[in-house]
Amino acid sequence: MKPRNPDFARAVRAIFEGAAFIQDLGVSLSDLGPGWCETQLALEPRHRQQHGFVHAGVQATVADHTAGAAGMTLVGPGEGVLSVEFKVNLLRPAGGDRLLCRGAVLRGGRSLIVAESEVWAEDAEARTLVAKATVTLAVRELVV
Amino acid sequence: MKPRNPDFARAVRAIFEGAAFIQDLGVSLSDLGPGWCETQLALEPRHRQQHGFVHAGVQATVADHTAGAAGMTLVGPGEGVLSVEFKVNLLRPAGGDRLLCRGAVLRGGRSLIVAESEVWAEDAEARTLVAKATVTLAVRELVV
Amino acid sequence: MKPRNPDFARAVRAIFEGAAFIQDLGVSLSDLGPGWCETQLALEPRHRQQHGFVHAGVQATVADHTAGAAGMTLVGPGEGVLSVEFKVNLLRPAGGDRLLCRGAVLRGGRSLIVAESEVWAEDAEARTLVAKATVTLAVRELVV
Amino acid sequence: MKPRNPDFARAVRAIFEGAAFIQDLGVSLSDLGPGWCETQLALEPRHRQQHGFVHAGVQATVADHTAGAAGMTLVGPGEGVLSVEFKVNLLRPAGGDRLLCRGAVLRGGRSLIVAESEVWAEDAEARTLVAKATVTLAVRELVV
Repeated sequence: MKPRNPDFARAVRAIFEGAAFIQDLGVSLSDLGPGWCETQLALEPRHRQQHGFVHAGVQATVADHTAGAAGMTLVGPGEGVLSVEFKVNLLRPAGGDRLLCRGAVLRGGRSLIVAESEVWAEDAEARTLVAKATVTLAVRELVV
Repeated sequence: MKPRNPDFARAVRAIFEGAAFIQDLGVSLSDLGPGWCETQLALEPRHRQQHGFVHAGVQATVADHTAGAAGMTLVGPGEGVLSVEFKVNLLRPAGGDRLLCRGAVLRGGRSLIVAESEVWAEDAEARTLVAKATVTLAVRELVV
Repeated sequence: MKPRNPDFARAVRAIFEGAAFIQDLGVSLSDLGPGWCETQLALEPRHRQQHGFVHAGVQATVADHTAGAAGMTLVGPGEGVLSVEFKVNLLRPAGGDRLLCRGAVLRGGRSLIVAESEVWAEDAEARTLVAKATVTLAVRELVV
Repeated sequence: MKPRNPDFARAVRAIFEGAAFIQDLGVSLSDLGPGWCETQLALEPRHRQQHGFVHAGVQATVADHTAGAAGMTLVGPGEGVLSVEFKVNLLRPAGGDRLLCRGAVLRGGRSLIVAESEVWAEDAEARTLVAKATVTLAVRELVV
Protein backbone atom coordinates (compact mmCIF):
# COMPACT_ATOMS: atom_id res chain seq x y z
CA MET A 1 0.00 0.00 0.00
CA LYS A 2 1.40 3.35 -1.06
CA PRO A 3 1.08 6.30 1.29
CA ARG A 4 -0.24 9.46 -0.39
CA ASN A 5 1.20 11.69 2.29
CA PRO A 6 5.02 11.52 2.41
CA ASP A 7 4.86 12.79 5.98
CA PHE A 8 2.33 10.16 7.10
CA ALA A 9 4.30 9.22 10.22
CA ARG A 10 3.97 12.73 11.56
CA ALA A 11 0.23 12.75 10.79
CA VAL A 12 -0.21 9.51 12.74
CA ARG A 13 1.80 10.75 15.72
CA ALA A 14 -0.44 13.82 15.80
CA ILE A 15 -3.59 11.75 16.35
CA PHE A 16 -1.99 10.16 19.41
CA GLU A 17 -0.64 13.40 20.85
CA GLY A 18 -3.83 15.30 20.04
CA ALA A 19 -6.34 12.79 21.37
CA ALA A 20 -6.87 13.60 25.03
CA PHE A 21 -8.68 10.32 25.74
CA ILE A 22 -5.82 8.26 24.33
CA GLN A 23 -3.34 10.21 26.47
CA ASP A 24 -5.57 9.85 29.52
CA LEU A 25 -5.94 6.11 28.98
CA GLY A 26 -2.18 5.69 28.48
CA VAL A 27 -2.09 4.26 24.95
CA SER A 28 1.19 4.85 23.15
CA LEU A 29 2.31 4.42 19.56
CA SER A 30 4.94 1.66 19.17
CA ASP A 31 5.57 1.43 15.46
CA LEU A 32 3.96 2.15 12.12
CA GLY A 33 4.32 1.75 8.37
CA PRO A 34 2.19 2.16 5.25
CA GLY A 35 -1.17 0.56 6.06
CA TRP A 36 -0.39 -0.56 9.61
CA CYS A 37 0.21 0.66 13.13
CA GLU A 38 1.13 -0.88 16.50
CA THR A 39 0.28 0.45 19.95
CA GLN A 40 0.54 -0.58 23.57
CA LEU A 41 -1.07 0.13 26.90
CA ALA A 42 0.47 -0.62 30.31
CA LEU A 43 -2.47 -2.02 32.29
CA GLU A 44 -3.49 -0.36 35.54
CA PRO A 45 -6.21 -1.18 38.06
CA ARG A 46 -8.33 1.68 36.68
CA HIS A 47 -8.69 -0.16 33.36
CA ARG A 48 -10.66 -3.01 34.92
CA GLN A 49 -14.34 -4.00 34.96
CA GLN A 50 -16.25 -5.54 37.84
CA HIS A 51 -14.66 -9.01 37.59
CA GLY A 52 -11.09 -7.71 37.49
CA PHE A 53 -10.59 -8.11 33.73
CA VAL A 54 -9.72 -5.29 31.34
CA HIS A 55 -12.98 -3.50 30.47
CA ALA A 56 -14.34 -4.16 26.97
CA GLY A 57 -14.39 -0.39 26.50
CA VAL A 58 -10.63 -0.18 27.02
CA GLN A 59 -10.04 -2.94 24.48
CA ALA A 60 -12.47 -1.32 22.04
CA THR A 61 -10.79 2.07 22.42
CA VAL A 62 -7.36 0.64 21.72
CA ALA A 63 -8.67 -1.38 18.76
CA ASP A 64 -10.57 1.57 17.26
CA HIS A 65 -7.77 4.11 17.66
CA THR A 66 -5.07 1.77 16.33
CA ALA A 67 -7.20 0.89 13.29
CA GLY A 68 -7.78 4.59 12.72
CA ALA A 69 -4.03 5.22 12.91
CA ALA A 70 -3.44 2.45 10.36
CA GLY A 71 -5.93 4.19 8.10
CA MET A 72 -4.23 7.57 8.67
CA THR A 73 -1.02 6.22 7.11
CA LEU A 74 -2.81 6.05 3.75
CA VAL A 75 -4.77 9.30 3.49
CA GLY A 76 -3.58 12.39 1.64
CA PRO A 77 -2.03 15.52 3.16
CA GLY A 78 -4.72 17.58 4.88
CA GLU A 79 -7.02 14.59 5.30
CA GLY A 80 -8.08 12.77 8.45
CA VAL A 81 -10.19 9.74 9.34
CA LEU A 82 -13.34 9.37 11.42
CA SER A 83 -14.71 6.05 12.69
CA VAL A 84 -18.03 5.33 10.98
CA GLU A 85 -18.63 2.09 12.85
CA PHE A 86 -16.75 -0.80 14.37
CA LYS A 87 -17.41 -4.29 15.65
CA VAL A 88 -15.26 -5.99 18.22
CA ASN A 89 -15.27 -9.57 19.46
CA LEU A 90 -14.00 -10.04 23.00
CA LEU A 91 -12.44 -13.45 22.58
CA ARG A 92 -11.13 -14.17 26.07
CA PRO A 93 -11.04 -12.39 29.43
CA ALA A 94 -8.10 -9.96 29.28
CA GLY A 95 -5.59 -9.49 32.07
CA GLY A 96 -1.83 -9.28 32.51
CA ASP A 97 0.67 -6.44 32.35
CA ARG A 98 -0.11 -4.76 29.06
CA LEU A 99 -2.16 -4.75 25.90
CA LEU A 100 -0.49 -4.85 22.51
CA CYS A 101 -2.46 -3.93 19.42
CA ARG A 102 -1.80 -4.13 15.70
CA GLY A 103 -4.09 -2.41 13.24
CA ALA A 104 -3.87 -3.08 9.50
CA VAL A 105 -5.81 -1.76 6.53
CA LEU A 106 -7.87 -4.40 4.74
CA ARG A 107 -9.16 -2.09 2.03
CA GLY A 108 -7.90 1.40 1.27
CA GLY A 109 -9.93 3.98 -0.62
CA ARG A 110 -10.35 7.69 -1.25
CA SER A 111 -13.54 8.03 0.82
CA LEU A 112 -13.77 4.83 2.91
CA ILE A 113 -11.10 2.67 4.53
CA VAL A 114 -11.65 -0.68 6.27
CA ALA A 115 -9.10 -1.75 8.86
CA GLU A 116 -8.77 -4.60 11.33
CA SER A 117 -7.20 -4.65 14.78
CA GLU A 118 -5.96 -7.48 16.93
CA VAL A 119 -5.51 -6.91 20.67
CA TRP A 120 -3.17 -9.11 22.67
CA ALA A 121 -2.83 -9.29 26.44
CA GLU A 122 0.69 -9.95 27.67
CA ASP A 123 2.11 -11.02 31.00
CA ALA A 124 5.57 -12.36 31.90
CA GLU A 125 4.80 -15.74 30.37
CA ALA A 126 2.56 -15.39 27.35
CA ARG A 127 0.70 -13.29 24.82
CA THR A 128 -2.96 -14.08 24.28
CA LEU A 129 -5.24 -12.77 21.54
CA VAL A 130 -8.08 -11.18 23.50
CA ALA A 131 -9.99 -9.11 20.96
CA LYS A 132 -10.43 -8.60 17.24
CA ALA A 133 -12.13 -5.63 15.64
CA THR A 134 -13.17 -4.49 12.18
CA VAL A 135 -13.38 -0.71 11.74
CA THR A 136 -14.91 1.34 8.90
CA LEU A 137 -13.31 4.77 8.55
CA ALA A 138 -14.47 7.80 6.57
CA VAL A 139 -11.80 9.98 5.00
CA ARG A 140 -12.47 13.66 5.61
CA GLU A 141 -10.80 16.95 4.72
CA LEU A 142 -9.35 18.43 7.88
CA VAL A 143 -10.58 21.90 8.65
CA VAL A 144 -7.61 23.89 9.91
CA MET B 1 -39.61 -9.01 30.72
CA LYS B 2 -39.57 -10.66 34.13
CA PRO B 3 -36.49 -10.35 36.31
CA ARG B 4 -35.31 -13.67 37.75
CA ASN B 5 -33.40 -11.96 40.53
CA PRO B 6 -35.71 -10.01 42.88
CA ASP B 7 -32.73 -7.93 43.93
CA PHE B 8 -31.70 -7.08 40.37
CA ALA B 9 -31.31 -3.36 41.08
CA ARG B 10 -28.60 -4.07 43.63
CA ALA B 11 -26.84 -6.41 41.19
CA VAL B 12 -26.81 -3.68 38.55
CA ARG B 13 -25.53 -1.02 40.94
CA ALA B 14 -22.70 -3.37 41.84
CA ILE B 15 -21.40 -3.51 38.26
CA PHE B 16 -21.12 0.28 38.25
CA GLU B 17 -19.51 0.55 41.67
CA GLY B 18 -17.21 -2.41 41.01
CA ALA B 19 -16.01 -1.44 37.54
CA ALA B 20 -12.94 0.75 38.03
CA PHE B 21 -12.91 1.92 34.40
CA ILE B 22 -16.51 3.11 34.60
CA GLN B 23 -15.73 5.01 37.79
CA ASP B 24 -12.58 6.45 36.25
CA LEU B 25 -14.45 7.56 33.13
CA GLY B 26 -17.23 9.12 35.22
CA VAL B 27 -20.24 7.12 33.97
CA SER B 28 -23.12 7.01 36.44
CA LEU B 29 -26.32 4.99 36.65
CA SER B 30 -29.44 7.16 36.23
CA ASP B 31 -32.32 4.72 36.25
CA LEU B 32 -33.16 1.10 35.57
CA GLY B 33 -35.99 -1.41 35.30
CA PRO B 34 -36.51 -4.96 34.07
CA GLY B 35 -34.72 -5.19 30.73
CA TRP B 36 -33.41 -1.62 30.58
CA CYS B 37 -30.94 0.81 32.09
CA GLU B 38 -30.04 4.49 31.68
CA THR B 39 -26.68 6.12 32.33
CA GLN B 40 -24.99 9.46 31.92
CA LEU B 41 -21.53 10.94 31.61
CA ALA B 42 -20.61 14.58 32.21
CA LEU B 43 -18.21 15.35 29.36
CA GLU B 44 -14.73 16.60 30.15
CA PRO B 45 -11.82 17.63 27.90
CA ARG B 46 -10.09 14.32 28.66
CA HIS B 47 -12.88 12.42 26.83
CA ARG B 48 -12.01 13.99 23.47
CA GLN B 49 -10.23 12.75 20.36
CA GLN B 50 -7.93 14.74 18.10
CA HIS B 51 -10.66 16.86 16.46
CA GLY B 52 -12.29 17.85 19.76
CA PHE B 53 -15.21 15.40 19.56
CA VAL B 54 -15.96 12.71 22.13
CA HIS B 55 -13.70 9.75 21.35
CA ALA B 56 -15.45 6.74 19.78
CA GLY B 57 -13.96 4.64 22.59
CA VAL B 58 -15.80 6.70 25.21
CA GLN B 59 -19.09 6.29 23.35
CA ALA B 60 -18.43 2.58 22.88
CA THR B 61 -17.61 2.11 26.56
CA VAL B 62 -20.83 3.82 27.65
CA ALA B 63 -22.88 1.86 25.11
CA ASP B 64 -21.32 -1.49 26.05
CA HIS B 65 -21.58 -1.03 29.80
CA THR B 66 -25.14 0.27 29.70
CA ALA B 67 -26.24 -2.63 27.50
CA GLY B 68 -24.53 -5.02 29.92
CA ALA B 69 -26.38 -3.41 32.79
CA ALA B 70 -29.69 -3.82 30.95
CA GLY B 71 -28.83 -7.50 30.53
CA MET B 72 -27.90 -7.76 34.23
CA THR B 73 -31.49 -6.87 35.17
CA LEU B 74 -32.65 -10.19 33.73
CA VAL B 75 -30.11 -12.76 34.94
CA GLY B 76 -30.59 -15.00 37.94
CA PRO B 77 -29.09 -14.53 41.42
CA GLY B 78 -25.40 -15.40 41.35
CA GLU B 79 -25.12 -14.80 37.61
CA GLY B 80 -23.29 -12.08 35.72
CA VAL B 81 -22.85 -11.02 32.10
CA LEU B 82 -19.78 -10.74 29.88
CA SER B 83 -19.67 -8.93 26.53
CA VAL B 84 -19.09 -11.46 23.76
CA GLU B 85 -19.05 -8.85 21.00
CA PHE B 86 -20.54 -5.52 20.09
CA LYS B 87 -20.95 -3.27 17.08
CA VAL B 88 -21.39 0.46 17.31
CA ASN B 89 -22.25 3.00 14.63
CA LEU B 90 -20.94 6.50 15.29
CA LEU B 91 -23.76 8.43 13.68
CA ARG B 92 -22.64 12.03 14.17
CA PRO B 93 -19.70 13.85 15.77
CA ALA B 94 -20.44 14.01 19.50
CA GLY B 95 -19.95 17.09 21.64
CA GLY B 96 -21.83 19.08 24.24
CA ASP B 97 -22.11 18.84 28.00
CA ARG B 98 -22.99 15.23 28.61
CA LEU B 99 -23.79 11.85 27.13
CA LEU B 100 -27.03 10.08 27.95
CA CYS B 101 -27.40 6.40 27.20
CA ARG B 102 -30.30 3.98 27.27
CA GLY B 103 -29.70 0.25 26.97
CA ALA B 104 -32.55 -2.19 26.40
CA VAL B 105 -32.68 -5.96 25.99
CA LEU B 106 -33.81 -7.09 22.55
CA ARG B 107 -33.71 -10.80 23.33
CA GLY B 108 -33.35 -12.37 26.76
CA GLY B 109 -32.11 -15.89 27.32
CA ARG B 110 -30.53 -18.25 29.83
CA SER B 111 -27.14 -18.31 28.16
CA LEU B 112 -27.12 -15.40 25.68
CA ILE B 113 -28.70 -11.94 25.85
CA VAL B 114 -28.79 -9.37 23.03
CA ALA B 115 -29.19 -5.72 24.00
CA GLU B 116 -29.11 -2.41 22.18
CA SER B 117 -27.86 0.98 23.33
CA GLU B 118 -28.53 4.47 22.11
CA VAL B 119 -26.13 7.26 23.03
CA TRP B 120 -27.29 10.88 22.97
CA ALA B 121 -25.14 14.02 23.27
CA GLU B 122 -26.80 16.86 25.10
CA ASP B 123 -26.02 20.54 25.39
CA ALA B 124 -28.15 23.44 26.67
CA GLU B 125 -30.26 23.43 23.52
CA ALA B 126 -30.69 19.94 22.15
CA ARG B 127 -30.21 16.20 22.40
CA THR B 128 -28.70 14.43 19.42
CA LEU B 129 -28.47 10.70 18.79
CA VAL B 130 -24.74 10.14 18.27
CA ALA B 131 -24.26 6.38 18.48
CA LYS B 132 -26.16 3.14 18.39
CA ALA B 133 -24.78 -0.23 19.47
CA THR B 134 -25.84 -3.86 19.47
CA VAL B 135 -24.24 -5.99 22.18
CA THR B 136 -24.18 -9.78 22.61
CA LEU B 137 -23.78 -10.85 26.24
CA ALA B 138 -22.95 -14.26 27.69
CA VAL B 139 -24.57 -15.19 31.00
CA ARG B 140 -22.05 -16.70 33.41
CA GLU B 141 -22.11 -18.07 36.95
CA LEU B 142 -20.26 -15.66 39.19
CA VAL B 143 -17.40 -17.21 41.10
CA VAL B 144 -17.46 -15.78 44.59
CA MET C 1 -37.06 12.78 6.75
CA LYS C 2 -37.45 14.60 3.47
CA PRO C 3 -36.93 12.72 0.22
CA ARG C 4 -34.66 14.52 -2.24
CA ASN C 5 -36.05 12.57 -5.18
CA PRO C 6 -39.76 13.27 -5.76
CA ASP C 7 -39.99 9.99 -7.62
CA PHE C 8 -38.37 7.96 -4.84
CA ALA C 9 -41.03 5.24 -4.88
CA ARG C 10 -40.19 4.39 -8.47
CA ALA C 11 -36.46 4.32 -7.64
CA VAL C 12 -37.12 1.86 -4.82
CA ARG C 13 -39.31 -0.39 -6.93
CA ALA C 14 -36.51 -0.50 -9.49
CA ILE C 15 -34.06 -2.03 -7.03
CA PHE C 16 -36.50 -4.87 -6.37
CA GLU C 17 -37.34 -5.48 -10.03
CA GLY C 18 -33.73 -5.12 -11.10
CA ALA C 19 -32.11 -7.32 -8.47
CA ALA C 20 -32.11 -10.86 -9.84
CA PHE C 21 -31.24 -12.42 -6.49
CA ILE C 22 -34.17 -10.74 -4.76
CA GLN C 23 -36.50 -11.96 -7.50
CA ASP C 24 -35.02 -15.44 -7.33
CA LEU C 25 -35.39 -15.56 -3.54
CA GLY C 26 -38.99 -14.32 -3.75
CA VAL C 27 -38.74 -11.12 -1.71
CA SER C 28 -41.42 -8.56 -2.54
CA LEU C 29 -41.92 -4.90 -1.65
CA SER C 30 -44.97 -4.36 0.58
CA ASP C 31 -44.93 -0.68 1.41
CA LEU C 32 -42.61 2.29 1.65
CA GLY C 33 -42.36 5.93 2.67
CA PRO C 34 -39.63 8.53 3.24
CA GLY C 35 -36.93 6.77 5.27
CA TRP C 36 -38.57 3.36 5.54
CA CYS C 37 -39.55 0.27 3.58
CA GLU C 38 -41.39 -3.00 4.26
CA THR C 39 -40.93 -6.31 2.49
CA GLN C 40 -42.08 -9.90 2.74
CA LEU C 41 -41.00 -13.36 1.73
CA ALA C 42 -43.25 -16.43 1.51
CA LEU C 43 -41.13 -19.18 3.02
CA GLU C 44 -40.38 -22.30 1.00
CA PRO C 45 -38.41 -25.47 1.81
CA ARG C 46 -35.49 -24.17 -0.30
CA HIS C 47 -34.94 -21.31 2.18
CA ARG C 48 -33.97 -23.68 5.00
CA GLN C 49 -30.68 -24.65 6.63
CA GLN C 50 -29.72 -28.08 7.94
CA HIS C 51 -31.96 -28.01 11.02
CA GLY C 52 -35.09 -26.94 9.12
CA PHE C 53 -34.96 -23.26 10.13
CA VAL C 54 -34.71 -20.35 7.70
CA HIS C 55 -31.05 -19.98 6.74
CA ALA C 56 -29.24 -17.00 8.30
CA GLY C 57 -28.27 -16.00 4.76
CA VAL C 58 -31.92 -15.63 3.76
CA GLN C 59 -32.63 -13.46 6.79
CA ALA C 60 -29.49 -11.42 6.14
CA THR C 61 -30.41 -10.90 2.49
CA VAL C 62 -33.89 -9.68 3.37
CA ALA C 63 -32.53 -7.42 6.12
CA ASP C 64 -29.79 -5.96 3.92
CA HIS C 65 -31.97 -5.35 0.88
CA THR C 66 -34.83 -3.83 2.87
CA ALA C 67 -32.42 -1.49 4.69
CA GLY C 68 -30.95 -0.52 1.33
CA ALA C 69 -34.43 0.21 0.01
CA ALA C 70 -35.14 2.40 3.05
CA GLY C 71 -31.94 4.29 2.27
CA MET C 72 -32.94 4.60 -1.42
CA THR C 73 -36.00 6.62 -0.40
CA LEU C 74 -33.70 9.44 0.73
CA VAL C 75 -31.07 9.75 -2.01
CA GLY C 76 -31.19 12.25 -4.85
CA PRO C 77 -32.26 11.57 -8.45
CA GLY C 78 -29.56 9.64 -10.27
CA GLU C 79 -28.09 8.28 -7.04
CA GLY C 80 -28.07 4.74 -5.68
CA VAL C 81 -26.87 2.98 -2.53
CA LEU C 82 -24.33 0.22 -1.97
CA SER C 83 -23.97 -1.80 1.23
CA VAL C 84 -20.64 -0.98 2.85
CA GLU C 85 -21.13 -3.39 5.74
CA PHE C 86 -23.84 -4.87 7.90
CA LYS C 87 -24.23 -6.77 11.13
CA VAL C 88 -27.15 -9.03 11.90
CA ASN C 89 -28.14 -10.75 15.12
CA LEU C 90 -30.12 -13.96 14.66
CA LEU C 91 -32.29 -13.71 17.74
CA ARG C 92 -34.35 -16.87 17.53
CA PRO C 93 -34.68 -19.85 15.17
CA ALA C 94 -36.92 -18.70 12.30
CA GLY C 95 -39.76 -20.77 10.83
CA GLY C 96 -43.38 -20.32 9.86
CA ASP C 97 -45.10 -19.21 6.69
CA ARG C 98 -43.40 -15.96 5.85
CA LEU C 99 -40.84 -13.36 6.82
CA LEU C 100 -41.83 -9.74 7.25
CA CYS C 101 -39.15 -7.06 7.31
CA ARG C 102 -39.16 -3.35 8.09
CA GLY C 103 -36.12 -1.22 7.33
CA ALA C 104 -35.78 2.31 8.63
CA VAL C 105 -33.09 4.95 8.28
CA LEU C 106 -31.37 5.83 11.54
CA ARG C 107 -29.12 8.52 10.09
CA GLY C 108 -29.41 10.04 6.63
CA GLY C 109 -26.55 11.77 4.87
CA ARG C 110 -25.20 12.84 1.51
CA SER C 111 -22.47 10.21 1.37
CA LEU C 112 -23.33 7.67 4.09
CA ILE C 113 -26.67 6.36 5.37
CA VAL C 114 -27.19 4.07 8.36
CA ALA C 115 -30.37 1.99 8.44
CA GLU C 116 -31.76 -0.74 10.66
CA SER C 117 -33.92 -3.73 9.77
CA GLU C 118 -36.12 -5.96 11.85
CA VAL C 119 -37.12 -9.37 10.52
CA TRP C 120 -40.23 -11.10 11.84
CA ALA C 121 -41.32 -14.71 11.21
CA GLU C 122 -45.04 -15.20 10.96
CA ASP C 123 -47.27 -18.25 11.09
CA ALA C 124 -51.04 -18.54 11.56
CA GLU C 125 -50.77 -17.73 15.25
CA ALA C 126 -47.99 -15.29 15.92
CA ARG C 127 -45.27 -12.95 14.74
CA THR C 128 -41.82 -13.36 16.27
CA LEU C 129 -38.84 -11.03 15.95
CA VAL C 130 -36.13 -13.31 14.57
CA ALA C 131 -33.37 -10.96 13.41
CA LYS C 132 -32.16 -7.39 13.71
CA ALA C 133 -29.58 -5.79 11.45
CA THR C 134 -27.68 -2.52 11.20
CA VAL C 135 -26.56 -1.59 7.68
CA THR C 136 -24.12 1.11 6.53
CA LEU C 137 -24.83 2.32 2.99
CA ALA C 138 -22.68 4.42 0.66
CA VAL C 139 -24.47 6.85 -1.64
CA ARG C 140 -23.13 6.66 -5.18
CA GLU C 141 -23.83 8.35 -8.50
CA LEU C 142 -25.49 5.85 -10.79
CA VAL C 143 -23.68 5.33 -14.06
CA VAL C 144 -26.32 5.05 -16.77
CA MET D 1 -6.81 -26.88 16.93
CA LYS D 2 -7.84 -30.38 17.89
CA PRO D 3 -11.13 -31.78 16.60
CA ARG D 4 -13.26 -33.41 19.31
CA ASN D 5 -15.23 -35.42 16.76
CA PRO D 6 -13.01 -37.91 14.88
CA ASP D 7 -15.62 -37.97 12.11
CA PHE D 8 -15.75 -34.17 11.78
CA ALA D 9 -15.44 -34.21 7.99
CA ARG D 10 -18.66 -36.18 7.69
CA ALA D 11 -20.41 -33.78 10.08
CA VAL D 12 -19.34 -30.83 7.94
CA ARG D 13 -20.42 -32.46 4.70
CA ALA D 14 -23.82 -33.05 6.26
CA ILE D 15 -24.43 -29.34 6.82
CA PHE D 16 -23.84 -28.71 3.13
CA GLU D 17 -25.98 -31.61 1.91
CA GLY D 18 -28.69 -30.89 4.45
CA ALA D 19 -29.00 -27.16 3.96
CA ALA D 20 -31.55 -26.62 1.19
CA PHE D 21 -30.63 -22.95 0.75
CA ILE D 22 -26.97 -23.76 0.24
CA GLN D 23 -27.89 -26.39 -2.35
CA ASP D 24 -30.30 -23.99 -4.03
CA LEU D 25 -27.69 -21.22 -4.16
CA GLY D 26 -25.06 -23.61 -5.54
CA VAL D 27 -22.40 -23.38 -2.82
CA SER D 28 -20.11 -26.42 -2.65
CA LEU D 29 -17.55 -27.62 -0.14
CA SER D 30 -14.01 -27.58 -1.57
CA ASP D 31 -11.77 -28.59 1.30
CA LEU D 32 -11.64 -28.66 5.08
CA GLY D 33 -9.44 -29.39 8.07
CA PRO D 34 -9.51 -28.84 11.83
CA GLY D 35 -10.65 -25.25 12.34
CA TRP D 36 -11.07 -24.29 8.70
CA CYS D 37 -13.19 -24.84 5.61
CA GLU D 38 -13.16 -23.73 1.97
CA THR D 39 -16.14 -23.37 -0.36
CA GLN D 40 -16.95 -22.09 -3.82
CA LEU D 41 -19.88 -20.81 -5.81
CA ALA D 42 -20.07 -20.66 -9.61
CA LEU D 43 -21.67 -17.26 -10.26
CA GLU D 44 -24.88 -17.07 -12.25
CA PRO D 45 -27.01 -14.11 -13.35
CA ARG D 46 -29.54 -14.95 -10.62
CA HIS D 47 -26.93 -14.08 -7.94
CA ARG D 48 -26.82 -10.41 -8.97
CA GLN D 49 -28.21 -7.21 -7.51
CA GLN D 50 -29.57 -4.23 -9.43
CA HIS D 51 -26.18 -2.95 -10.66
CA GLY D 52 -25.01 -6.33 -11.95
CA PHE D 53 -22.72 -7.15 -9.01
CA VAL D 54 -23.08 -10.20 -6.77
CA HIS D 55 -25.74 -9.38 -4.16
CA ALA D 56 -24.44 -8.68 -0.65
CA GLY D 57 -26.85 -11.38 0.55
CA VAL D 58 -25.11 -14.01 -1.58
CA GLN D 59 -21.72 -13.01 -0.21
CA ALA D 60 -23.09 -12.95 3.33
CA THR D 61 -24.64 -16.39 2.93
CA VAL D 62 -21.40 -17.90 1.66
CA ALA D 63 -19.39 -16.19 4.42
CA ASP D 64 -21.79 -17.24 7.18
CA HIS D 65 -22.15 -20.85 6.07
CA THR D 66 -18.42 -21.35 5.51
CA ALA D 67 -17.60 -19.88 8.93
CA GLY D 68 -20.22 -22.20 10.44
CA ALA D 69 -18.63 -25.16 8.68
CA ALA D 70 -15.21 -24.16 10.05
CA GLY D 71 -16.77 -24.11 13.51
CA MET D 72 -18.39 -27.51 12.91
CA THR D 73 -14.95 -29.09 12.52
CA LEU D 74 -14.29 -28.42 16.22
CA VAL D 75 -17.51 -29.41 18.00
CA GLY D 76 -18.10 -32.75 19.68
CA PRO D 77 -20.08 -35.71 18.28
CA GLY D 78 -23.79 -34.95 18.44
CA GLU D 79 -23.24 -31.19 18.53
CA GLY D 80 -24.03 -28.56 15.93
CA VAL D 81 -23.55 -24.81 15.52
CA LEU D 82 -26.02 -21.97 15.10
CA SER D 83 -25.10 -18.45 13.96
CA VAL D 84 -25.70 -16.03 16.82
CA GLU D 85 -24.66 -12.97 14.82
CA PHE D 86 -22.32 -11.92 12.06
CA LYS D 87 -20.88 -8.79 10.54
CA VAL D 88 -19.68 -8.56 6.98
CA ASN D 89 -17.79 -5.79 5.20
CA LEU D 90 -18.40 -5.62 1.45
CA LEU D 91 -14.97 -4.40 0.42
CA ARG D 92 -15.34 -4.08 -3.34
CA PRO D 93 -18.05 -4.72 -5.96
CA ALA D 94 -17.99 -8.46 -6.68
CA GLY D 95 -18.21 -9.96 -10.15
CA GLY D 96 -16.43 -12.60 -12.23
CA ASP D 97 -16.92 -16.32 -12.64
CA ARG D 98 -16.97 -17.63 -9.11
CA LEU D 99 -16.68 -16.86 -5.43
CA LEU D 100 -14.12 -18.63 -3.27
CA CYS D 101 -14.44 -18.53 0.49
CA ARG D 102 -12.22 -19.59 3.35
CA GLY D 103 -13.56 -19.72 6.89
CA ALA D 104 -11.27 -20.16 9.88
CA VAL D 105 -11.89 -20.37 13.61
CA LEU D 106 -10.42 -17.46 15.56
CA ARG D 107 -11.47 -18.73 18.98
CA GLY D 108 -12.81 -22.19 19.77
CA GLY D 109 -14.86 -22.96 22.84
CA ARG D 110 -17.35 -25.39 24.35
CA SER D 111 -20.33 -23.03 24.08
CA LEU D 112 -19.23 -20.22 21.74
CA ILE D 113 -16.99 -20.21 18.67
CA VAL D 114 -15.81 -17.14 16.74
CA ALA D 115 -14.81 -17.63 13.12
CA GLU D 116 -13.82 -15.36 10.25
CA SER D 117 -14.48 -15.70 6.52
CA GLU D 118 -12.84 -14.15 3.53
CA VAL D 119 -14.69 -14.10 0.21
CA TRP D 120 -12.77 -13.77 -3.04
CA ALA D 121 -14.19 -13.12 -6.52
CA GLU D 122 -12.32 -14.84 -9.32
CA ASP D 123 -12.31 -14.40 -13.07
CA ALA D 124 -9.86 -15.68 -15.70
CA GLU D 125 -7.28 -13.10 -14.70
CA ALA D 126 -7.39 -12.39 -11.01
CA ARG D 127 -8.71 -13.07 -7.55
CA THR D 128 -9.99 -10.12 -5.54
CA LEU D 129 -10.91 -10.02 -1.87
CA VAL D 130 -14.50 -8.78 -1.93
CA ALA D 131 -15.84 -9.43 1.57
CA LYS D 132 -14.72 -10.25 5.08
CA ALA D 133 -16.98 -11.48 7.85
CA THR D 134 -16.77 -12.25 11.55
CA VAL D 135 -19.27 -14.83 12.79
CA THR D 136 -20.24 -15.79 16.37
CA LEU D 137 -21.53 -19.36 16.64
CA ALA D 138 -23.35 -21.07 19.49
CA VAL D 139 -22.62 -24.75 20.07
CA ARG D 140 -25.80 -26.74 20.60
CA GLU D 141 -26.72 -30.35 21.25
CA LEU D 142 -28.36 -31.76 18.14
CA VAL D 143 -31.81 -33.20 18.73
CA VAL D 144 -32.05 -36.37 16.68
